[in-house]
Amino acid sequence: MQPLGISILGCGTVGSGVIQLLLTQSQRLTRRCGRTLALRHVVVRSVAKARETWIPRDRLTDRVETALDDPDTHVVVELIGGTDLALDLVLAALKAGKHVVTANKALLAAHGARIFDAAREANRVVAFEGSVAGGIPIVAAMSQSLAANQITAIQGILNGTSNFILSSMADGGKTYTEALAEAQRLGYAEADPTLDVDGSDAAHKLAILSQIAFGVTIAPDRIEKHGIADVHVMDLRFAAELGYTIKLLAEAWLDGEGVALHVAPVLLRRTDMLAQVRGACNAVQVIGDAVGETVFQGPGAGMMPTASAVMADILDIAIGRAELTFKAARLWSSENTIVRTLKPAADVPSRFYLRVLVEDRAGMLASVTRLLADRGISISSVIQHEALEDMPDTLIPLVIITHYAPTGRFRESIAEISGLPGVASPGVWYSVDD
Amino acid sequence: MQPLGISILGCGTVGSGVIQLLLTQSQRLTRRCGRTLALRHVVVRSVAKARETWIPRDRLTDRVETALDDPDTHVVVELIGGTDLALDLVLAALKAGKHVVTANKALLAAHGARIFDAAREANRVVAFEGSVAGGIPIVAAMSQSLAANQITAIQGILNGTSNFILSSMADGGKTYTEALAEAQRLGYAEADPTLDVDGSDAAHKLAILSQIAFGVTIAPDRIEKHGIADVHVMDLRFAAELGYTIKLLAEAWLDGEGVALHVAPVLLRRTDMLAQVRGACNAVQVIGDAVGETVFQGPGAGMMPTASAVMADILDIAIGRAELTFKAARLWSSENTIVRTLKPAADVPSRFYLRVLVEDRAGMLASVTRLLADRGISISSVIQHEALEDMPDTLIPLVIITHYAPTGRFRESIAEISGLPGVASPGVWYSVDD
Repeated sequence: MQPLGISILGCGTVGSGVIQLLLTQSQRLTRRCGRTLALRHVVVRSVAKARETWIPRDRLTDRVETALDDPDTHVVVELIGGTDLALDLVLAALKAGKHVVTANKALLAAHGARIFDAAREANRVVAFEGSVAGGIPIVAAMSQSLAANQITAIQGILNGTSNFILSSMADGGKTYTEALAEAQRLGYAEADPTLDVDGSDAAHKLAILSQIAFGVTIAPDRIEKHGIADVHVMDLRFAAELGYTIKLLAEAWLDGEGVALHVAPVLLRRTDMLAQVRGACNAVQVIGDAVGETVFQGPGAGMMPTASAVMADILDIAIGRAELTFKAARLWSSENTIVRTLKPAADVPSRFYLRVLVEDRAGMLASVTRLLADRGISISSVIQHEALEDMPDTLIPLVIITHYAPTGRFRESIAEISGLPGVASPGVWYSVDD
Repeated sequence: MQPLGISILGCGTVGSGVIQLLLTQSQRLTRRCGRTLALRHVVVRSVAKARETWIPRDRLTDRVETALDDPDTHVVVELIGGTDLALDLVLAALKAGKHVVTANKALLAAHGARIFDAAREANRVVAFEGSVAGGIPIVAAMSQSLAANQITAIQGILNGTSNFILSSMADGGKTYTEALAEAQRLGYAEADPTLDVDGSDAAHKLAILSQIAFGVTIAPDRIEKHGIADVHVMDLRFAAELGYTIKLLAEAWLDGEGVALHVAPVLLRRTDMLAQVRGACNAVQVIGDAVGETVFQGPGAGMMPTASAVMADILDIAIGRAELTFKAARLWSSENTIVRTLKPAADVPSRFYLRVLVEDRAGMLASVTRLLADRGISISSVIQHEALEDMPDTLIPLVIITHYAPTGRFRESIAEISGLPGVASPGVWYSVDD
């Protein structure tokens, strides 16, 4: 059989990993798919730039046409990231009759429908295992292995940077700023970490998983999100005292006829599988109506883990499986609409963790709990300690966990509580998962 | 496209679940694979027997020829279990030109090569996602999603019964006998639990996973195994004191040119993901040379979880993907031999937990540790408490965790220690995982 020709757009971390696998494991890869995989071209901005030693300089080009016009390139692997140039190149590759493999979650979250329509038109496939949760084969698991199920809920630790920061705050007692600096030093966080810590990156991935599970196409900026920058080390301490830990979760779940989605810090019981996920790992819990609860865990980013996922897509194309999967799953098409209604997170009841700083004087606990009671929100547990060492000594933290309450009504109560005399800070609150 | 005709051999728990999915979710299943799935025949021993309400009585037959001679049956789903009759029927189905889906781990572990050769000869597929770890898609993950990797180690909680018993001993302080009785009452253990608690069932599953990962064909009775019947509640207590928990693990790992396999109770650090797996769940940690550590967790048995896996295979056949996978993976064939040497577990160094009961008199600790020291086995930690309440009061438990030592030499030492004057019990020992 003819070798499968592969051209790669972008030669950053993941691109270098894919090239390493192609060049050092060619025998293994041939054995796995029955074909030779041939590295044709590596399209980069600067051919002159210094690169990893194993990158073959004679395959480098700064002209994308070299790849797209090459009749022996069958697969274009898009690894440049971003949404503008990447969109143009992916559409051009499909138009040129190439299959596309991408690990670009932002691109799919923003332009999935356009890209998949173009692929159907060109009779080519788009494969994207590497775009969500790095080395964890969550795309294949949800769209193939669990295909007998209606997925009813997804709960994912999808941003390794945030999980690293929260883990090192919880286990090492670091402040947010110290933990972020450590993550940057170790290469787990970018110089500008905004998209990781504000929930945007997780929202992109959640948008992709929600397309697979529910057929919903949602612009990622419409997913309600709440980052980790306001998680204080004392919240992790109080959560632990109550038997919980705090994780940044990307969640989507069926609720009647609709689906609700959000990205937010959530309190998980310490014995929950996702609560055990430490450091830069990712994990996804998927609940299916036949299978029940399944959890998939692994490295969520990095050169070789993501290259492993990208290469799985390339092997699937070489074997011919990707075309069958692409046609059967009908992603980002009107035929894949399972759920039509998006439910605002505010309509979904939850339990809540609330922490306010109050002046250390009589009656504060009474007035806060009275206000909640008046709004029909009942309380499951309360912590009121003496002033913490690292607090101005006139302020004490008041921590409340509620029973189930409508999210909207709870949020209104927070606003009112923050306005009470003697309450010194806006309330910090998170959902509590059971 | 023509409907895909399905006949089912056996209508026990899993068979009933598959039929329920076929009949109640036919729209969903058609949407997922682009074809109608038609239930043709259900072959049972007794047509007259009382069955679940949803089983269509007009599809029941006690003649297997009804299914095998039916030109509109394309897939035969073998769910009768056991190895003798099941082997005959699977071979007959392949010869009759049917694809085979099976959840029968004992059958594949014992006769994989014969069955897969017959399938290749007949140009049909054998799919078996349901045979290992119930609803967890570990077969697809290892043979497809991680195909870019050489898998270097597998570590699995593959027997839900044993995990349920160990969890309820560790968390609830039950004795082995009490925990087993509870498992039987809840339906997690058979009346005769031997194959579950002695490690046989886990060994069958490990043999299948080792074929996928390493290409080794090993008769399951050649896998060294050690069940959970000698795990005493005090061992779980001592393990916890030292920061560990005890799980029945099925393990296989590359070691130089060979592969070592065993099933045994192992001490895992309490923070290890597998240590968190409670109750009747299964979980598999797979390490790949590109992806690193991944963990897959979910329900390891039960009607609907296993039906979910069986149905994934049926959908894969309907889509045409199973044929491509079957050809590419070349399981149980001479072309899939990655590893040629099986390494005896005794050749592999490990750390060890050792517990002996000794008479409560001076010098016991010294004589036991002296014997280990003389054999070059050094000690990492020791626990010697006063006599436990539930022990004859002249005996005290002595617990030692060693550093790395050759397994063979450690075993010889145990035999010698058990013969020392004042040592009242044969030593109980387990590997300790780091």
